[in-house]
Amino acid sequence: MKVYLDNAATTMVDPRVVKAMLPFFSEKFGNPSSLHRFGREAKKALERARAVIAKKINADPSEIIFTSGGTESDNLAIRGIAYANRHLGNHIITSKIEHPAVLRTCNSLMEEGFEVTFLDVDEEGFVDLKALEKSITKKTILVSIMHANNEIGTIQPIEKIGRICKKHRVYFHTDAVQSFTKVPIDVRKMNIDLLSISSHKIHGPKGVGALFVRKGVKIKPEITGGSHESGLRAGTENVPGIVGFAKAVELSSDDDIRKMSKLRDRLISGLLKIKDSKLNGPRGKKRLCNNVNIGFRGVEGESLMMYLDTKGIAVSTGSACANLLEEGGTSHVLQAISKDLEFATGSIRLSLSRFMTEREIDYTIESVRGIVKHLRRISGFE
Amino acid sequence: MKVYLDNAATTMVDPRVVKAMLPFFSEKFGNPSSLHRFGREAKKALERARAVIAKKINADPSEIIFTSGGTESDNLAIRGIAYANRHLGNHIITSKIEHPAVLRTCNSLMEEGFEVTFLDVDEEGFVDLKALEKSITKKTILVSIMHANNEIGTIQPIEKIGRICKKHRVYFHTDAVQSFTKVPIDVRKMNIDLLSISSHKIHGPKGVGALFVRKGVKIKPEITGGSHESGLRAGTENVPGIVGFAKAVELSSDDDIRKMSKLRDRLISGLLKIKDSKLNGPRGKKRLCNNVNIGFRGVEGESLMMYLDTKGIAVSTGSACANLLEEGGTSHVLQAISKDLEFATGSIRLSLSRFMTEREIDYTIESVRGIVKHLRRISGFE
Repeated sequence: MKVYLDNAATTMVDPRVVKAMLPFFSEKFGNPSSLHRFGREAKKALERARAVIAKKINADPSEIIFTSGGTESDNLAIRGIAYANRHLGNHIITSKIEHPAVLRTCNSLMEEGFEVTFLDVDEEGFVDLKALEKSITKKTILVSIMHANNEIGTIQPIEKIGRICKKHRVYFHTDAVQSFTKVPIDVRKMNIDLLSISSHKIHGPKGVGALFVRKGVKIKPEITGGSHESGLRAGTENVPGIVGFAKAVELSSDDDIRKMSKLRDRLISGLLKIKDSKLNGPRGKKRLCNNVNIGFRGVEGESLMMYLDTKGIAVSTGSACANLLEEGGTSHVLQAISKDLEFATGSIRLSLSRFMTEREIDYTIESVRGIVKHLRRISGFE
Repeated sequence: MKVYLDNAATTMVDPRVVKAMLPFFSEKFGNPSSLHRFGREAKKALERARAVIAKKINADPSEIIFTSGGTESDNLAIRGIAYANRHLGNHIITSKIEHPAVLRTCNSLMEEGFEVTFLDVDEEGFVDLKALEKSITKKTILVSIMHANNEIGTIQPIEKIGRICKKHRVYFHTDAVQSFTKVPIDVRKMNIDLLSISSHKIHGPKGVGALFVRKGVKIKPEITGGSHESGLRAGTENVPGIVGFAKAVELSSDDDIRKMSKLRDRLISGLLKIKDSKLNGPRGKKRLCNNVNIGFRGVEGESLMMYLDTKGIAVSTGSACANLLEEGGTSHVLQAISKDLEFATGSIRLSLSRFMTEREIDYTIESVRGIVKHLRRISGFE
């Protein structure tokens, strides 16, 4: 049995997405910037995709900039606002549990003279709204708080954060890479100024993402050259990838959310029956529908992951990006929420997709139970 | 008849490339940064592709950084060197006929205090090596001269430029987006420090490129986040795209170069039989094997392009990127080489692929001849 439970790292491209992409490789292969028939055909597909994605978050198509992925979108949002608003202030507010694409970009801005406040989070990973509001100063130009956390699934109160930012006239960026299509997003209602999304987390192809930039919000482009994407992101658009991204959005549904939530809860309650286990992150509606993160006392998360791999079950110990970031170390997210670091090092993340079955969930629970028992025995924990 | 003569803008993805990519969408879809089987499988494909591309330019696989395309590669090379070497100097040398990805990036660096020398070119588009050497000062940190021009096909004497840069201990970057697989490249022999290439110009997919960075050359990353690509380019790698890129490289051959050169010369001599016509750029081995750029006195290039489009023939008036850059204006490349701007505005670029046939070439010559005659009649030129 092969069970893929690492959908927060990347997802299987839906075969219907691949089918939608195929004509744009070898038939309708034009460059959208070309003026002839081949170019116009590509341009039409590009703009149709833009409209589909805009509609999903209640944006205008002109507010969508295509990028190479979520990381580039985060970079463009944060540096783009920082460089375009330096004259207004040099202060940025973010949280301690953001994705490395946000944290490292903020770190690199600090080297250039920007000041960054990294907000603490509570034991479930939530940002304290009062602390957020208090940290806003006259020099603050941007708040960047992720919508849903990639490791522990915490869904932040984005609408409330948007309201605070609006009140203080500070730009609000949210990394919605994990939440997009899994939590409803309305950029108007939520007062979001910039929002990052990625295709390969929602059964679309890798190498494609987008940044929503609210009309009137000025950012400095990062990649310069031709005037693609309203002059904000140079480079020939990845038409097949963008078409696939839009198809993936069209295929997403609220039924998927309900299905995944149910399987998630089945997985959580099955795993929590193992003694000395602990759920990281919140429960219920404030948790991403496809995220499970559980710690087992007396167990190394990485060993558990490797043993599960031999049983055909793919899970992770943190984010795939953090594998590179924190070699051998403990997740910065678990460190931020944990008082008990023993649980943190013994934690694994299991992230579901709409393609999962109850049988796979039950097989996973049984496998984890057996391996945890084995690992605890050899380590002398029990 | 459908004749695609805009292969400098983008190319049809070779069906064998699509076939090579397909397994990496929905079967081997792992994230190369994941440690489980799915991830290792993706990582293996990624590293195999890296080796294929490195070999083609006589580089080491560790010297290849995957990017989202040629524009991003140019940006990363130029800003990367500029920011990492600011303490050594602030002077960059380039030419007047570079791609917008180079020119606009240099322009944006000028706003930040860098000084840029834009070298003139001669009537065939060649940089003057003596002028280049003279322009090097103690503050010079980088020379960026493209390998082959995207509009007029001029192949610069890269090896000699490399030698000059080495002698003066200045980094040498070349945009090889148009020349890669069409002109042999050996980064060691040519003393190249950084080299930009793109997949979608060589029958690979859009959204993928690479930057060669010679071992020991330090650049500042542009996109920050996870430590992908040796920490120099964050973001989940576009595995199917990268696999396709490598396949496109493997499918390229010297036979293609010979075939395209022959068809190019047939097209040039056929079009030059039209009176009051002029070839832009050099002839023979110093011209890119797939590039034709011809001006017709008394004709608007854009009208000629649109009329050809109605006959199913896709050509361009300049680069697709320049369509966006110079709306309604004249190509910056033709302006740099032309004394006679009337020819410049009446010029079209026809760029071939290995899939072209003699029949298509002859149909194109006949069509251009007829349309030029018609346009000259209605404009009162003849």
